[in-house]
Amino acid sequence: MSWTLRYGSFIPEKEGLREALCTLGNGYFATRGAGEEADADDIHYPGTYLTGGYNRLTTEVAGHLVENEDLVNFPNWLKLRFRPAGGAWFNLRGVDILDFEQTLDIKTAVLKRRIRFRDRENRITSIESGRLVHMRDPHLAAIELKITPEDWSGPIEICSELDGTIVNAGVQRYRELNSKHLHPIGLGEANDESLWLHVETVQSRLEMAQAARTRLFTTEGPCSAARELLQGDEWVAHRITTDVSAGKPLRIEKVVAVHTSRDRAMSEPGLAAREALSEAPDFDELLATHSKLWEWLWRLFDMQLIDSGDAEQVEAQRILRLHILHLLQTVSAHTIDMDAGVPARGLHGEAYRGHIFWDELFIFPFLNFRAPEITRALLLYRYRRLPAARRLAKEAGFEGAMYPWQSGSDGREETQKLHLNPKSGRWLPDNSHLQRHVNLAIAYNIHSYMKVTDDRQFLAFYGAEMMIEIARLFASLATWNAEHERYEIRGVMGPDEYHDSYPDAEQPGLDNNAYTNVMAAWLFTRTIELLDLLDDAWRHMIADSVQLTEEEIERWRRIASKIRVCFHDNGIISQFEGYDLLLEFDWAGYRARYGDIQRLDRILEAEGDDPNRYKLSKQADVLMLFHLFTADELTRLFGIMGYEFDHAMIPRNIAYYLARTSHGSTLSRIVHSWVLARSDRAESWKLFGQALRSDVDDIQGGTTHEGVHLGAMAGTVDIVQRGYSGLEVEDGGLRFDPCLPTELRHLRMNIRFRNHILMLDMNHERLIVRSAEGSAAPLRLARGEAVEQIRCGEKKTFALPPT
Amino acid sequence: MSWTLRYGSFIPEKEGLREALCTLGNGYFATRGAGEEADADDIHYPGTYLTGGYNRLTTEVAGHLVENEDLVNFPNWLKLRFRPAGGAWFNLRGVDILDFEQTLDIKTAVLKRRIRFRDRENRITSIESGRLVHMRDPHLAAIELKITPEDWSGPIEICSELDGTIVNAGVQRYRELNSKHLHPIGLGEANDESLWLHVETVQSRLEMAQAARTRLFTTEGPCSAARELLQGDEWVAHRITTDVSAGKPLRIEKVVAVHTSRDRAMSEPGLAAREALSEAPDFDELLATHSKLWEWLWRLFDMQLIDSGDAEQVEAQRILRLHILHLLQTVSAHTIDMDAGVPARGLHGEAYRGHIFWDELFIFPFLNFRAPEITRALLLYRYRRLPAARRLAKEAGFEGAMYPWQSGSDGREETQKLHLNPKSGRWLPDNSHLQRHVNLAIAYNIHSYMKVTDDRQFLAFYGAEMMIEIARLFASLATWNAEHERYEIRGVMGPDEYHDSYPDAEQPGLDNNAYTNVMAAWLFTRTIELLDLLDDAWRHMIADSVQLTEEEIERWRRIASKIRVCFHDNGIISQFEGYDLLLEFDWAGYRARYGDIQRLDRILEAEGDDPNRYKLSKQADVLMLFHLFTADELTRLFGIMGYEFDHAMIPRNIAYYLARTSHGSTLSRIVHSWVLARSDRAESWKLFGQALRSDVDDIQGGTTHEGVHLGAMAGTVDIVQRGYSGLEVEDGGLRFDPCLPTELRHLRMNIRFRNHILMLDMNHERLIVRSAEGSAAPLRLARGEAVEQIRCGEKKTFALPPT
Repeated sequence: MSWTLRYGSFIPEKEGLREALCTLGNGYFATRGAGEEADADDIHYPGTYLTGGYNRLTTEVAGHLVENEDLVNFPNWLKLRFRPAGGAWFNLRGVDILDFEQTLDIKTAVLKRRIRFRDRENRITSIESGRLVHMRDPHLAAIELKITPEDWSGPIEICSELDGTIVNAGVQRYRELNSKHLHPIGLGEANDESLWLHVETVQSRLEMAQAARTRLFTTEGPCSAARELLQGDEWVAHRITTDVSAGKPLRIEKVVAVHTSRDRAMSEPGLAAREALSEAPDFDELLATHSKLWEWLWRLFDMQLIDSGDAEQVEAQRILRLHILHLLQTVSAHTIDMDAGVPARGLHGEAYRGHIFWDELFIFPFLNFRAPEITRALLLYRYRRLPAARRLAKEAGFEGAMYPWQSGSDGREETQKLHLNPKSGRWLPDNSHLQRHVNLAIAYNIHSYMKVTDDRQFLAFYGAEMMIEIARLFASLATWNAEHERYEIRGVMGPDEYHDSYPDAEQPGLDNNAYTNVMAAWLFTRTIELLDLLDDAWRHMIADSVQLTEEEIERWRRIASKIRVCFHDNGIISQFEGYDLLLEFDWAGYRARYGDIQRLDRILEAEGDDPNRYKLSKQADVLMLFHLFTADELTRLFGIMGYEFDHAMIPRNIAYYLARTSHGSTLSRIVHSWVLARSDRAESWKLFGQALRSDVDDIQGGTTHEGVHLGAMAGTVDIVQRGYSGLEVEDGGLRFDPCLPTELRHLRMNIRFRNHILMLDMNHERLIVRSAEGSAAPLRLARGEAVEQIRCGEKKTFALPPT
Repeated sequence: MSWTLRYGSFIPEKEGLREALCTLGNGYFATRGAGEEADADDIHYPGTYLTGGYNRLTTEVAGHLVENEDLVNFPNWLKLRFRPAGGAWFNLRGVDILDFEQTLDIKTAVLKRRIRFRDRENRITSIESGRLVHMRDPHLAAIELKITPEDWSGPIEICSELDGTIVNAGVQRYRELNSKHLHPIGLGEANDESLWLHVETVQSRLEMAQAARTRLFTTEGPCSAARELLQGDEWVAHRITTDVSAGKPLRIEKVVAVHTSRDRAMSEPGLAAREALSEAPDFDELLATHSKLWEWLWRLFDMQLIDSGDAEQVEAQRILRLHILHLLQTVSAHTIDMDAGVPARGLHGEAYRGHIFWDELFIFPFLNFRAPEITRALLLYRYRRLPAARRLAKEAGFEGAMYPWQSGSDGREETQKLHLNPKSGRWLPDNSHLQRHVNLAIAYNIHSYMKVTDDRQFLAFYGAEMMIEIARLFASLATWNAEHERYEIRGVMGPDEYHDSYPDAEQPGLDNNAYTNVMAAWLFTRTIELLDLLDDAWRHMIADSVQLTEEEIERWRRIASKIRVCFHDNGIISQFEGYDLLLEFDWAGYRARYGDIQRLDRILEAEGDDPNRYKLSKQADVLMLFHLFTADELTRLFGIMGYEFDHAMIPRNIAYYLARTSHGSTLSRIVHSWVLARSDRAESWKLFGQALRSDVDDIQGGTTHEGVHLGAMAGTVDIVQRGYSGLEVEDGGLRFDPCLPTELRHLRMNIRFRNHILMLDMNHERLIVRSAEGSAAPLRLARGEAVEQIRCGEKKTFALPPT
């Protein structure tokens, strides 16, 4: 029950949402979950997106040349139409639906559909389909379609196509822009039963080749049928005609192999795709090997909320698994050898055009404790774009490297300059590129990866250089304020996007954003510590290569010890300097007037008002600090900066900012649930429950169909993984401090850490840790004062004090 | 003195040799060391080869379609011609050379030339040039040319070109084949001083873009000059005209940026190349950063034979450094993020078309002790081609995976089917693809990498799967011989290529090649051990994924314990079954008759005879075992196989086979020098000295100009590194057992091992090991019975017993 996402009816308006949530992928590419009727004009094309594939186009919009870089759409391989000869091609909107069921099988990552319908000629037909994007062989995907004419017999036509006419049309507001990305290189018949189509993107000349084989089967076995080759400039199809008899199913299999010019170990993608197809087995065997691999994935990646029979918990379990599924469809072992980042919306839609933001901060913790090899590969994506980040810093007049808020194919800033408020219809300047904190997130991710793995080769070759260059950026952002005798960082934006400037200011940007400044102090401290991990020779070589001097490191120390953080109301960390002067917002009034006030920015702008005037947040900003750091770490950090910090400040700050947040980002509830995990478990569980529903219920009302919110998905998983289990790395081992909410009575999960596979089993009374058989060195485990060494094959139990 | 390779005269016949030995590269691409006169028709084009770049073409030769896959040639970026206006373009063969000096500066990887000449108009001009392929930024290269008219003044024309008309013409015997690989995509002027050229390979559609900037300087500074843009379909040039005055030098700089469609973190290569060029500094700054990086490289990679003033030793030192330089020009830190293998002839020429053989076996040890990250990346090159190897095994009727003897771009077998004996002019069947032992070399390399790094992530994700599939191959090659009650492997070739079949046999292949069979026993044993290093879950997942059963592992154990090795003459390991029945060869007679008998195969075939009839070897075959394994390891291995083995067999076998070897491969002397290191240091040192000269003296008479012998180069380095130092990995630490030859009195080198940088200093009396400052865990060091733990910053001294 907790392994399926099921739709029992066809609701055309929800089609986009269903498509996004039923996306299948394997880290190399992903295909949205559209149906066999997908060629109907009024339903979106089912996009197939390729990891790391972008294309940049220019459009003239209202006299302006607008440049847009999009995640590229692979030619549509799903097209598999049918019709009784002479009838209309099957289309969900053109028939009477008698029965409809679409099921995403989360356990095996297979999408199934069952439809029974009456067509315009009053014939009743039922169809069943299944499809997969293969998890072991990333170049393969397959669809199976079973057609049973219930009360009719006669000739039937199947049209199996590879369609390169596809455009990026998944996001309504982008449709004005140029969205035609593909240009044909060649197409044709590979053999009697197979087609191929080879295209390239028009600007980036990324080549994509597909080869597809279509086979027909009756219950007796393979079925021969007449085939006609049809082709246009950008598409190729087999039109297959055969006879069907009432009550006898016809089964059609289409297996596709995909390769691109960015693949390795090949001569050219067309040849590679045709060769891969020629070796590909039939659907059943593909399904078996695919399912088997998923079985293994779940052994490592599942998180079990042990069934208490409670419906809410069963639902939480189902959605958590859906989230894990979608994480693994976007990044997987196949991502390791690619130049892949983590798009904010997965490979599930075209929103944000596939660009990379800071979502990794929420996504990496899940990977770190299971497959840090994937985290490492994703950090290399950033490393490869270090030259572009250096360029961006230089152009902005700063030192070091500045990763952009929205990072495109080659690492350049792709943040939009204008955005549309659909409420007012106005195009507004977009200052979100001032979110320099994305760089702090990258540094935090490097440090977290190092904590988990102690991978000093990574540090030596890549990590140290990135840390240094980011530290440099923040050192060059910091200016001395003689009056306060403190360093300041001015003109930036924090994570809260409702605030991008002071009310009525001419220039955008805010001063001394607390999150940024505290993180900068953390950055300087940690960079220095990480450099000390390197052997002397390597340390000097890096320093020499980037011309890092001891004086510069000294300056980092000085800034860390003297960076400014503002406070107000006796212990409230000011989100930024001057936050205390802003107006309190009329929360009750607006809630009464508008109901859903998640996007207060749009509401206020449409009213001619400005969120910059108020004490209100789109999402956690100051509170991010309590998400990223433990109380002890914060005490240490504030100590370094020369500020008083006592633990009692934490609940006061949480209460203060939580009361002033509209949760306009899906990430907001994640952070708030996390920070309340210890002080208010009930409220934490409630927010967790809301965060869980971000995508399945499309709580932002229309954003999910443009792609899932991968950071929020991962965030919910991490609340369980680290938030409620209190899992932390300490002294090269693990520390636990479980604080399961009342409703979460029993949790099991496996993690991989330093060559151990650890099976964790915790409830409100005790924590059991088992290490699988293996040959890893003993590992330190701690819970409270208790410290144990666990060896492979051993089990340790920790009693948990009543709370 | 030991840091330069110098040529004091221009000898046209030696031009190819000089080009190969003066190749500059950085692991991403390499450019042969041709001169500025390189466009003269009778001198080869200066090839620029791209790591992992191949193209496959078909040619009709004598009515047969012949397929050839070649290492691709990058367009020629070096072309920088000059002439007094109205005169002839400078060409070394068209002038009287008054003075000539070409120097490869090994320390900084800069090639310099000084030429003074009198032209046909009796003008005397001197030129000086320097060039580099940048080691920090792999996309940049630069050439500087200083022209001083000694006794004339007037207008001078410079022609700076990017030339895509280049063909593969570096190997005489390939010239009949199709060698035109490039097809233009676009070209033009990027700005006033810069050109760009964008091409693709015709079959593999690998795109390559170059952008080049040419600047002129007088002693006063930048110099403006009239430029004319010239272009053809496949080339683009700036013709620059300016005035020169007698005695006043004109300096020209050409900086080039190169990108390909296989690069990462970019949008498209043309844009990337132009952007990279726009940020590239001038020559002097490039030289400074390039030299600085080489300074750091030498700190880690140098090997110092401390100068005893002895000329032979100084020469050995120079050549060792030249070899290290060429290793790092073919593989480097830049290789890590590429899909790169190690071509047998480096990136230094077109012989073997860039294909990958077994040379890694000789190359990886050097990398393992300094930058195992590079070894890991090169092993991933093999892992990516595991599907191709599975296909090859299947096609040949075997199980598992069979890596080909000559591996091409996508991992397919590219071994030639025929080869030419230039002595007889006959084309002969080539059975060298029967060298299944390349698979054993790959397994050995995986195991060695694991010993050095204990990188269990590599094992889990890649290594274990390759080991299993190779073990499977050899299990399926093994057949049971009921008569001998032993398993056999029939129909293969060992490393000795003089023997590919039994005399007068109809089928090629030999039975029970001792090297193959003993290595197979080793393979089964080590694969089982490595699998036991994995945690239980991963082990089961892999087993499940490749359907490995306990019964199969049991069969491996059984084969290992019962595989057949033949012996003759009381303790001589027969190279293969029936070796003892072959005729003894008349070594003295042939030496007297032919002088150089390295290539006895060609001599005998030309005489109508066949090397298969004789006890003679091209290179070490049985003796490879003594190269790869210590006496103790061999005792253990033969014990597992159920054979008696005592240490006294080693010198007897060495003497036996050394007396029957022609050294027809550059690898032969490496192995023989190694195996004699302990029993006959004087002979070992002599063979080492000969091996050192393989390329610098082109001892095979004409093969070096087709590319250096990278395996032999690395082999000489490894004789010093591990052979004479007795360096071994033991229990996760290091063991030393130095046996420096008399002539090698004092050796210093640095190695990197398990996060330590160790500085080794050894002479005939003692070994000193220092560990640099750092934070690595203490490391075990052993020498004889003495065992010590060394910490970062510490020094340990071991006395060496007199020998």
